[in-house]
Amino acid sequence: MSTRDLITVNGDRLWRSLMELAEIGAYDDERTGLRGVNRLALTDADAAGRRLVIGWMEQAGLAVRVDRMGNVYGRREGGDPGARPVLTGSHLDSVATAGAFDGCLGVLGGIEAIRTLNERGITTRHPLEVAIFTEEEGVRFGTDMLRSAVAAGRVSLEDAYALTDRDGVTLGAELARTGFDGPASERLDPPHAYVECHIEQGPVLANAGVEIGVVTGVQGISWQEVVIHGRAAHAGTTPTELRADAGLAAAQVVTNLRAMVDSGSYGELRATVGHLAVHPDLTNIVPARAELTVDLRNPDDGLMARAEEDLVAFLRTLEERQPGLSVTTRRMARTSHVPFDDGVRKVIAQAADDHGLAHLSLLSGAGHDAQEIAALCPTAMIFVRGEYDGISHNPREYSTPEACAHGIDVLATTLLRLAGHD
Amino acid sequence: MSTRDLITVNGDRLWRSLMELAEIGAYDDERTGLRGVNRLALTDADAAGRRLVIGWMEQAGLAVRVDRMGNVYGRREGGDPGARPVLTGSHLDSVATAGAFDGCLGVLGGIEAIRTLNERGITTRHPLEVAIFTEEEGVRFGTDMLRSAVAAGRVSLEDAYALTDRDGVTLGAELARTGFDGPASERLDPPHAYVECHIEQGPVLANAGVEIGVVTGVQGISWQEVVIHGRAAHAGTTPTELRADAGLAAAQVVTNLRAMVDSGSYGELRATVGHLAVHPDLTNIVPARAELTVDLRNPDDGLMARAEEDLVAFLRTLEERQPGLSVTTRRMARTSHVPFDDGVRKVIAQAADDHGLAHLSLLSGAGHDAQEIAALCPTAMIFVRGEYDGISHNPREYSTPEACAHGIDVLATTLLRLAGHD
Repeated sequence: MSTRDLITVNGDRLWRSLMELAEIGAYDDERTGLRGVNRLALTDADAAGRRLVIGWMEQAGLAVRVDRMGNVYGRREGGDPGARPVLTGSHLDSVATAGAFDGCLGVLGGIEAIRTLNERGITTRHPLEVAIFTEEEGVRFGTDMLRSAVAAGRVSLEDAYALTDRDGVTLGAELARTGFDGPASERLDPPHAYVECHIEQGPVLANAGVEIGVVTGVQGISWQEVVIHGRAAHAGTTPTELRADAGLAAAQVVTNLRAMVDSGSYGELRATVGHLAVHPDLTNIVPARAELTVDLRNPDDGLMARAEEDLVAFLRTLEERQPGLSVTTRRMARTSHVPFDDGVRKVIAQAADDHGLAHLSLLSGAGHDAQEIAALCPTAMIFVRGEYDGISHNPREYSTPEACAHGIDVLATTLLRLAGHD
Repeated sequence: MSTRDLITVNGDRLWRSLMELAEIGAYDDERTGLRGVNRLALTDADAAGRRLVIGWMEQAGLAVRVDRMGNVYGRREGGDPGARPVLTGSHLDSVATAGAFDGCLGVLGGIEAIRTLNERGITTRHPLEVAIFTEEEGVRFGTDMLRSAVAAGRVSLEDAYALTDRDGVTLGAELARTGFDGPASERLDPPHAYVECHIEQGPVLANAGVEIGVVTGVQGISWQEVVIHGRAAHAGTTPTELRADAGLAAAQVVTNLRAMVDSGSYGELRATVGHLAVHPDLTNIVPARAELTVDLRNPDDGLMARAEEDLVAFLRTLEERQPGLSVTTRRMARTSHVPFDDGVRKVIAQAADDHGLAHLSLLSGAGHDAQEIAALCPTAMIFVRGEYDGISHNPREYSTPEACAHGIDVLATTLLRLAGHD
């Protein structure tokens, strides 16, 4: 190991940039008593945050371009004019009740890595680029990681422009209004490699007492909406055997999903019913209709498919158990397990070792821009540990200044080693 | 049996009055394609319906008084000035998606009985009174059978006046606005007897092929709200064993209630979870909070108490199963089994026999004004059979003209026999 290719960033400067950005879209959260962040994609707050960060990119000497999806790329040229760039980045948009770290750490960390290379006078062989991807959260326009998906060519520009928020405003109109309807092509030329640093958003690293996660991939995600039609009936007068209780059937779906998880037959399956509603939702009326979402996660595509099949079979039994019930399902989202590149993972692990940081390999439970980029080039991610069981999408979201700096040390060293000294 | 005390009413006239009243507050129901009724208590529609019916009372020679709770009494004097009145009646207010019969049959049937006695020139020894009770449904101001409860002295006038609807409008203000803040005392002097004719709102009579139900009482009702506090968590990143999933716990309550019913250990227990909601109600967030209502019905007070205790014990196990969960409950309503008077029931059964109508005895699953009046005087009810499994609180609610006329024949004959010939 040589100190020549080991980069230690300025952790204080990184932290100050995180805190300064968090003031844009900040609000006082009544439930937690903490300061939260609300910077939904392409709102005025998001645009202000982007302008602040683009200013930092320019101060760091990056040449900034904006593409037709509002994705921003800041480029630092390398020594080899024909070499493809090593890309890093993440997103600045947030959910409505967010903290300061989700996404922001990856973008500001990329800029901090560039600043440090500048200070050390290091030129890489491959160019380096730092990206801000538009609307990763999917909270405003309904499709997560969409801009990254468009950049990678999986969703058309027209379809993306036509998406609307709850007020009927289109994404295309908001890109124009905020000035982020750039001229560059929305298609991303395959980079040399992609590395993203992100907070873990889970408890694994903290529970293991480890600083750095080397992410092996993103688990498969299956989202379905289940609607159960029963029959409204008077709670006092309708005999139990004559009921078609949609709420009961919904509850049976929820408990059956947990039984599937507990059975161990589906590997590391996680199942969540986050949305559950009944109609007419009155104390003394047997529910006529129930609606729920099923969120399944599995690192094993075969076991995921088996879980989906067995769920369908269980839904069929509901119609037999209560005559008069009918069940419909709608697929909301489906992604397979995305394995990350072995080579990039090894570079990350070696960088952590060289910085003296304990690390472990883990799969990402959440989706990230990186899973789309992985189709274009060798890709992997670095996870930084979070406090409070890694709570995220919540003002309590927190990673210490030390944890953030260590994550970006590993990012900067990885970027340098992937891009090579000129 | 003598025809002298057997009253056959004018079924056509009764039906026309039901249909005419149903036009007030009528709407076209999109879900059923039928004409429904929306006459929430003390709205303009309810006031218009009341004025129409008060006009009919006056045309039938009744002296009308309104009490301070808006309850309306139409009185026909009897031959004995000191005798207490035989009371009949029901309510005209409806739920938001109602049919033409719930409540209205009892009021209009009482008036039709009076008209028939007038035509036959019959004077009774006891006075006869027909009542319209205010806001039986409890849908607008949140407490069902409240006005009847105030009339019987169980709820104070002040408490009733202060009740608000969803827009914060008080019941007292709406009584004044609609002109139903009458001068008469809201306390009801004990009548000689009370008889109410009502649609069954259930399938028992139709399934048995019987016209008339002699109601033996009203089963006990227990309403509770259960709130479960868990911990919001990311669906993708939070290991199953670290979750405190409030939605899962709510589902376990629902399925456990059905298991209790199916066990047979609680007699004729009926259990309904009609309201069920989770927060933040997002696909990929483990529910932090769940809220549900539990509606229990039981004709046996001892078995009802046991069911309530066992539910409490089950709720306690939820906190053990998922550390970090907590459960709170709030009692919304609780009534014991109210048995109706043997003597009045016998008069009803004899009247049905004398009219040549098949009848059976059954318990009411729903609450009715009669259960409050039962504390004041000998009381019973007559049920009329409904079509479509007795569906009610729905535009599909329907009883045939013949079924309605037969029910009111029995009511009129019963009223005459209870009041006696002068």
